[in-house]
Amino acid sequence: MPTLRIDPATEQDLPVILELIQALADYEKLSHLVTATEERLRETLFGAKPAAEVLLARWDRECAGFAVFFSTYSTFLAQPGLYLEDLYVKPHLRGRGIGLALLRRLAGMAKERGCGRLEWEVLDWNQRAIGFYKKLGAEPLDEWTRYRLSGDTLKSLAVSGH
Amino acid sequence: MPTLRIDPATEQDLPVILELIQALADYEKLSHLVTATEERLRETLFGAKPAAEVLLARWDRECAGFAVFFSTYSTFLAQPGLYLEDLYVKPHLRGRGIGLALLRRLAGMAKERGCGRLEWEVLDWNQRAIGFYKKLGAEPLDEWTRYRLSGDTLKSLAVSGH
Repeated sequence: MPTLRIDPATEQDLPVILELIQALADYEKLSHLVTATEERLRETLFGAKPAAEVLLARWDRECAGFAVFFSTYSTFLAQPGLYLEDLYVKPHLRGRGIGLALLRRLAGMAKERGCGRLEWEVLDWNQRAIGFYKKLGAEPLDEWTRYRLSGDTLKSLAVSGH
Repeated sequence: MPTLRIDPATEQDLPVILELIQALADYEKLSHLVTATEERLRETLFGAKPAAEVLLARWDRECAGFAVFFSTYSTFLAQPGLYLEDLYVKPHLRGRGIGLALLRRLAGMAKERGCGRLEWEVLDWNQRAIGFYKKLGAEPLDEWTRYRLSGDTLKSLAVSGH
């Protein structure tokens, strides 16, 4: 019987983490946005002040996928939450419940940490993922749109603020 | 000349913070979702491990509005970001640049902290806010939808994971 293990990632897993980030970006047709390097991942995930946490799923010792997440906050609930930044399972290992196991682990962690919500975002064309999330009872927040300042627009607003 | 001051909120500001949360929820027609109390805000914002930060704007010493934000993480950038959970200015004090001043302060903090993005979400009917955000050069991430597990759906996934 193949075995599934889910563990918090360590520094030794950095090459695998970068590989999974790139594979996810490729799947999302967003590879041109990836500027992450192992060194920067080391600093931000395993440095003095980790900005996110990583769970690695292994299927028979092969690294099968990951979940990257961080804490959020809801003022309406006055309660923290968890935000799932990335969830990815390698294509040849899908259909084995690995993504579901990662989400279950996260839901358990949310409960342990007193979180009121577990949230994430999905690309509107990713029907396979959307079907999976709806089956779990996840609620789409259709009436909200995310806005982003980055690069030059972020810089120029910051400069004008000083 | 009226003066505008923006400062990090302290525990003394809790009554005002709760009032602003309720006013924002009312404006967003989401008051039924607010379960926050001063006590829970105290624990989560000013306890041992603050889950978010609050900037308070004062116009001639009157509390005029606030910004509530927390740190995020982008795997694609291997870089932290800031997420603006709430931005609110009291109706009778709008049109004075208070919201813009709060956003500028946040953009400056994002820069100081090495953040690659400043993000937030807006309700699709809130055209006044959307126009303001677009003028700043903020990019709408139209192709993404947020999904949420909370309450019973979050609990049942957690239970089935143990």
